Amino acid sequence: MAMFGTTLLISGHMKTYNNMDIYQKEIRLPSFPRGFHLITSHITKAIPDLGSYSAGILKVFIKHTSAGLTINENADPTVRDDFESHFNRMVPENAPYYRHTYEGSDDMPAHLKASILGSSVEIPVTDGRLNLGTWQGIYLCEHRNRGGNRSVVITLIGEKA
Amino acid sequence: MAMFGTTLLISGHMKTYNNMDIYQKEIRLPSFPRGFHLITSHITKAIPDLGSYSAGILKVFIKHTSAGLTINENADPTVRDDFESHFNRMVPENAPYYRHTYEGSDDMPAHLKASILGSSVEIPVTDGRLNLGTWQGIYLCEHRNRGGNRSVVITLIGEKA
Amino acid sequence: MAMFGTTLLISGHMKTYNNMDIYQKEIRLPSFPRGFHLITSHITKAIPDLGSYSAGILKVFIKHTSAGLTINENADPTVRDDFESHFNRMVPENAPYYRHTYEGSDDMPAHLKASILGSSVEIPVTDGRLNLGTWQGIYLCEHRNRGGNRSVVITLIGEKA
Repeated sequence: MAMFGTTLLISGHMKTYNNMDIYQKEIRLPSFPRGFHLITSHITKAIPDLGSYSAGILKVFIKHTSAGLTINENADPTVRDDFESHFNRMVPENAPYYRHTYEGSDDMPAHLKASILGSSVEIPVTDGRLNLGTWQGIYLCEHRNRGGNRSVVITLIGEKA
Repeated sequence: MAMFGTTLLISGHMKTYNNMDIYQKEIRLPSFPRGFHLITSHITKAIPDLGSYSAGILKVFIKHTSAGLTINENADPTVRDDFESHFNRMVPENAPYYRHTYEGSDDMPAHLKASILGSSVEIPVTDGRLNLGTWQGIYLCEHRNRGGNRSVVITLIGEKA
Repeated sequence: MAMFGTTLLISGHMKTYNNMDIYQKEIRLPSFPRGFHLITSHITKAIPDLGSYSAGILKVFIKHTSAGLTINENADPTVRDDFESHFNRMVPENAPYYRHTYEGSDDMPAHLKASILGSSVEIPVTDGRLNLGTWQGIYLCEHRNRGGNRSVVITLIGEKA
């Protein structure tokens, strides 16, 4: 039964389920160069049963401290270029106050960027698909010059149809 | 049965439940001007059964790349003014290194701010209410000059009493 | 039964469970000085049954607006020193545009830092332990000079073995 609020325009739907399960998987991503990269399809391909979930929450967690995950525009690649330009200025290399410097000039900025952007994203799952906005995609934020393969843990808690 | 840690002062309670359900709803918020706005009551009003959940987690996800969600002070409105002032300096308009400029001077900063602040918040639900600190509220972070109505997906996973 | 993707190197495992429970507890942390502090062991000690969860998600939520939580390097303490140095520059005290100033010069920067770093972390639980990367730990980000004891809500949704 649909249920509508009184003060808000409701554009979606209301559902209550009570037969949830949890799906969990760890995958290793391909190696990406320093910068911001769309990985939405890498994630969805790792969940073969995604289409059978009526409602849920997908969590993606990156097991590293020098790379992050965020959600942003999936269309114009200059957005991702501008992310790299901006974060390199907001969190510069070789700042005179850094003490953790022995792993290279890209290391301490990578740690800071990772915490500013965050180590996980969570996305609602609705009617068998990620319920992202039209323009949203999942970014791998690779802050190291040679980050190598990054591991992420995918956890989906939800209700199958 | 309550259970207490040995090295920490426990101020709360311990519960284990095993009859969870999931509630999910998509709502469209009223249009807000650029800036930071308290939307806690918009969210709680959209969950008529909130009071019946003994324990759970509420997730609110915004389906846009130029607006975000965060949790911060719910009392003095100058905190929200200062958020707008600070983020406008930390992520300026018309930075010479931006390449994604054709959607207006407020667009690329909006994407960056959205990822710095994040596209979702999650709040524990305890004894039928959001278990926020006394001074915490949910902010809609509207980074566009004319962002229009923003859609959010509310997902509540929890146990009913 | 293990299930492998086609385009990704899978380094982990796939599991589906359907007998979840939810565990929730609120604890008060010891008082920490301003700065960034590892609290991973404080959190795990508060979950005596952690070892019995086959798969799940742990959420830690801080009930304050002038302190935050993040995940970053657990080894070299100079990383945490550099966090304090960098955030003090990125979000300065006594900025001329602050209006919310009556709670002290450390107050408004604390609110801003709290939203930049975030009020919660979530970590997958796998085979009875936090599925963190080798170098990852949970940081309490204490932004006030005298923040006192901070309260966090721990919620673990998962499946017991």
